[in-house]
Amino acid sequence: MAQYRELRTEKEIDIRFSDVDSMKIVWHGNYIKYFEDAREAFGARYGLGYLDIYAAGCYVPLVDISVKFLHPLTFGRKAAVSAVWRPCDAAKLVFDYEIKDMETGVMAATGRSVQVFTDLENRLLWAAPEFFENWKKKWTVEQ
Amino acid sequence: MAQYRELRTEKEIDIRFSDVDSMKIVWHGNYIKYFEDAREAFGARYGLGYLDIYAAGCYVPLVDISVKFLHPLTFGRKAAVSAVWRPCDAAKLVFDYEIKDMETGVMAATGRSVQVFTDLENRLLWAAPEFFENWKKKWTVEQ
Amino acid sequence: MAQYRELRTEKEIDIRFSDVDSMKIVWHGNYIKYFEDAREAFGARYGLGYLDIYAAGCYVPLVDISVKFLHPLTFGRKAAVSAVWRPCDAAKLVFDYEIKDMETGVMAATGRSVQVFTDLENRLLWAAPEFFENWKKKWTVEQ
Amino acid sequence: MAQYRELRTEKEIDIRFSDVDSMKIVWHGNYIKYFEDAREAFGARYGLGYLDIYAAGCYVPLVDISVKFLHPLTFGRKAAVSAVWRPCDAAKLVFDYEIKDMETGVMAATGRSVQVFTDLENRLLWAAPEFFENWKKKWTVEQ
Repeated sequence: MAQYRELRTEKEIDIRFSDVDSMKIVWHGNYIKYFEDAREAFGARYGLGYLDIYAAGCYVPLVDISVKFLHPLTFGRKAAVSAVWRPCDAAKLVFDYEIKDMETGVMAATGRSVQVFTDLENRLLWAAPEFFENWKKKWTVEQ
Repeated sequence: MAQYRELRTEKEIDIRFSDVDSMKIVWHGNYIKYFEDAREAFGARYGLGYLDIYAAGCYVPLVDISVKFLHPLTFGRKAAVSAVWRPCDAAKLVFDYEIKDMETGVMAATGRSVQVFTDLENRLLWAAPEFFENWKKKWTVEQ
Repeated sequence: MAQYRELRTEKEIDIRFSDVDSMKIVWHGNYIKYFEDAREAFGARYGLGYLDIYAAGCYVPLVDISVKFLHPLTFGRKAAVSAVWRPCDAAKLVFDYEIKDMETGVMAATGRSVQVFTDLENRLLWAAPEFFENWKKKWTVEQ
Repeated sequence: MAQYRELRTEKEIDIRFSDVDSMKIVWHGNYIKYFEDAREAFGARYGLGYLDIYAAGCYVPLVDISVKFLHPLTFGRKAAVSAVWRPCDAAKLVFDYEIKDMETGVMAATGRSVQVFTDLENRLLWAAPEFFENWKKKWTVEQ
């Protein structure tokens, strides 16, 4: 199997007042937004944003997402969210995420998302589309 | 000028845990969602929903919205939001809103929104589109 | 081990215009809100809401949540979200979720959440608190 | 009346995928979040954040907010939101907002918010609290 270097992007996020719930911590559902922030930052850096993918005639709907909440985040803090692309042989796009409190360095959450490829009529593509194979080759280091 | 009977819809809303901020009251931005709930309930009842309007070849983007916050809403309460259509001669769609705490009857907020009509290429329509003139006639009581 | 009857709650949800993304389907992060809707409906029915738990001197922060997206939901549809309590011996609160399109009956998503118990100073409770043991007994059918 | 120099803060915002609605433009309710971003950036710069105000024994709930939508914002754009403090003699905190598309320079929206002062039991303060009078003096240039 091809060998890929680890592709990772990190993005700083501001914790909004409106992100925080009545226990004064970030409401858990907002971590999904932070993950998307990291995924978009990844897409912007490596040419794999929603608009790039759309231009290639595909959508990449999420089929699976999970979050582990390790430590609460509070209002006024800065956090850093990272996305790491996980190569896989299936026609899927897999990312692992980490969110850290930038002040304390404490890991606040980790997660994973899985996306599939569809055409613009939302029909599942069982094989990875050509643009994605090319994208992978661009970042591959053959052994 | 034509005389219209007052068209009003009321909708019950559940205050979500995630709607509430760290002061344990509904975060002010969420009132905009509640107004939209009322507007959609109005649209469903009187045949003026986004999908009806889209089917007529129009969008109705908001150009103005305002909210007056009178009394905080808290988690676990039920609230009722109403939308009243305000007839006007301009090619605009105007609604007034009221949100009441259903337990106490206290008025929590009032507001107003103004929408204009565009075609599906987002070009402003200076005159009200025909479907809307017909819609108004349907609800008109001539004097 | 004690035998529990299956405790389940179902709640109808309106898909909001603001829940839908530019692909005209519900943005995936919103499913987390729908799960919380079901969990709160469960809490209201079986006396296990946030406010009940708070009154017993506890919080129940989420430590794990996952969603499988099976079929997109679109604006204007009604969906039903259910929460089923999954008994476990650990000091945890586990729910499984299902979201169905009420018009077609199609399963849109499934998921699971895991919560732990803390005291009001956010210290983890390694044993289930007494109120929760009592709550479980109330719903237990011994064999 | 005292003369104040204009106090203004500008903040860059990323338009999130989840901020955009099915018409592929930022959902109007999200502008309220952007305004809050600007207000918080203002508070951080001039020592008037929620946490500063809370430390002084006050809350500053919103009583009025309005938005004029001038031009749609789309996904992938960067926007700049500014908040300008508007001095007034009443015990109120007034901000004007502007949101610009950073690529085109086009004004996307303007708005205004009004906040009042309460103590921590949510009782309205009819006179501006001392910390706020001191804050104003600090930024005053007498004529």
